[in-house]
Parts: sequence; structure tokens; C-alpha cells
Amino acid sequence: MKFSLLSSETIYKGRVFDIRVDKIAYESGNEAWREVALHNGGAVIVPVTPEGKFVLIRQYRYPLSEWLLEFPAGKLEKDEDPFLCAGRELQEETGYTADSIVPLGSIFTTPGFCTERLFIYAALGLKPGEHAREEGEQGMEVIELSAEEINEYIRSGKLMDSKSLSAYVMYQAYEGRK
Amino acid sequence: MKFSLLSSETIYKGRVFDIRVDKIAYESGNEAWREVALHNGGAVIVPVTPEGKFVLIRQYRYPLSEWLLEFPAGKLEKDEDPFLCAGRELQEETGYTADSIVPLGSIFTTPGFCTERLFIYAALGLKPGEHAREEGEQGMEVIELSAEEINEYIRSGKLMDSKSLSAYVMYQAYEGRK
Repeated sequence: MKFSLLSSETIYKGRVFDIRVDKIAYESGNEAWREVALHNGGAVIVPVTPEGKFVLIRQYRYPLSEWLLEFPAGKLEKDEDPFLCAGRELQEETGYTADSIVPLGSIFTTPGFCTERLFIYAALGLKPGEHAREEGEQGMEVIELSAEEINEYIRSGKLMDSKSLSAYVMYQAYEGRK
Repeated sequence: MKFSLLSSETIYKGRVFDIRVDKIAYESGNEAWREVALHNGGAVIVPVTPEGKFVLIRQYRYPLSEWLLEFPAGKLEKDEDPFLCAGRELQEETGYTADSIVPLGSIFTTPGFCTERLFIYAALGLKPGEHAREEGEQGMEVIELSAEEINEYIRSGKLMDSKSLSAYVMYQAYEGRK
């Protein structure tokens, strides 16, 4: 894409994201503003029990004022290895630990306005353990669903979290390759 | 979730999103800040040709400085019906019109920090027509892929857009119901 950057200003530095506003000029001479939310990214885990059930959590999402069903996930600390983040969040949010954590690829959640990239992992060989939740994660409920139940949840609008839907189809593609 | 809202301030009003910062108090007395990006939402279309191929576009994504493969999609104007947005974006971005546009449900792209909700549609009975692209959409490439090719693209990291992966698995769930 051919354009030149005329100016770039970070207008907000937040806890979860910063906001940068750029002014660009196309080759035609037309100018445009671009707003970008800068986000560190995160890790998403598809935990699969030895019985082939998927482990999800129901958590309160402040921006929506709703409880959503999602795969476990967490934000990356600066320069954190997403593989380590995946293992930590799995245990914090579900109590499970995993024999193996398999990378499935990565996704961009909102490429139109945000840099957020999420790294997706399958967690296999799960063993029960202790939860270690932070305040604000209290009340999280752990829910185990079969593949058939997940498909029914998708059809009936009970599974609306985009990263979880993406992680599920990536796990399906991974399973289909074996 | 039990908390009380202590303060709420819109600290940025942008073209694509606004930013609101809330201060809340939990029942424990602990206080926390919540940053929310307010987004109007949009529509995503899964266009399927009479031959069963999926129509995607490759477009430049400024925040990532990358070209991404995605299903056609567009932002909602204030109070716009997402069904109308879906038909418009289908034609603008791919040139196709559809005999029928079928709702598949909706998704939240980043429920942790943003209100964005996308309404997902399948576009069936496609007929070729004229593109009507806006500046900044120039250079968009239309790409048609079989289901097998999409699965291979997912496995090899060539399809990384979360809304498109979500829309694809929702279409699969819809197809499985018929």
C-alpha cells in the first residue's frame, strides 16, 4: 500500500492499550487519519480432557455487561513468551495442568483498528489441580463441553467470543491433519 | 458481577471508536479502572458461489502493516441495520450480489476491552457484478477458495483474521444443521 506518514501521536497510554493517531497521505495527495489501538497481545488455550471434552470458562465482560463463554486466555506481559502465558492462564483459570501445550498458530482479533495478536495453543493430557484466580476473576465458572455441544452452542448463539470460535476451528484443522 | 461505578469519563472521541475510562469499586472495597473502546460494530459476510467456493478478499491492514485474507466486512453506520450493511459490503468489496443473505448469529471480537459486535451472514446464490470501492480499499484482491483450501490456509497460518475464522466455523455449524 502506497502512502506516506505525515504525523504520528500517542494520545492515550492506558493499562490494556495505548492509542496512536497517524496522519497519512495517499499517492493521489488525499490525506487520511488512522487511529490505532496498540495492544501487547495474548495467548488462548484450547484445553482438551482425556475424554475429549473442551474446557471453557464463563466470565463477566465489563465492556458488554455480560457473562461470556470463552476458552481460557490471558494478556501477554511485555516481552513474555506466549507459550508460558498459555500454561499459566490454563492453571489460573481452570485449575488444570497439561502434559503438552501445542501451538496452533496465531490470529488478529481486530486488524482494522488494533494491533492485538493472540497465540493459540491446544492443551492436551490435562490433570486437575488448583485454581489461582485474581480479583475480578472471581465467579468464573468452568464448563466442559463435547464437540457436539460446542457445535450446538455455536448454532444457538451461546458461544459468541470470536477468539474462542477461531481457536476452535484452528483446533479442528489441527485434528484433521493428524 | 457485584461492583459499583464510581466515575465514568469519555477521554477520546474518534472516527472508528471512542474511549471511556471507568472507575469501579468491588464489594471488598478494592477499586479498579476499566478502559473501554466503544465501537459501533459491523457485519461480516461469508459469500458462497454456486460451485461451493468461498469468496475472500486480501486487504491492507494499517495497524499491522500487513495484507490480510478476510471475508468481506464493514462497519455499521449509527443505527444501521447490519443486514443492509452486509449486502452493501458484499457488492462493494467483491462485486457479487446475492439471492439470499442468511443470518448466522453474532460475535464479540475483543470482549475484554471493546464493545464491538459483528453480525455474521452467509451470502448464497451469488451473481457477478461491479465493484464500488472507496479510496483506501484500492488494491483489494478477490480470492475464491474451496473448503479444503480454507482448512489448509488455517493450518498453514495464511488465514489469521479472527472474525473470518469465526464466521467460517459458524457457517460450518449452519451447514451441519441442514
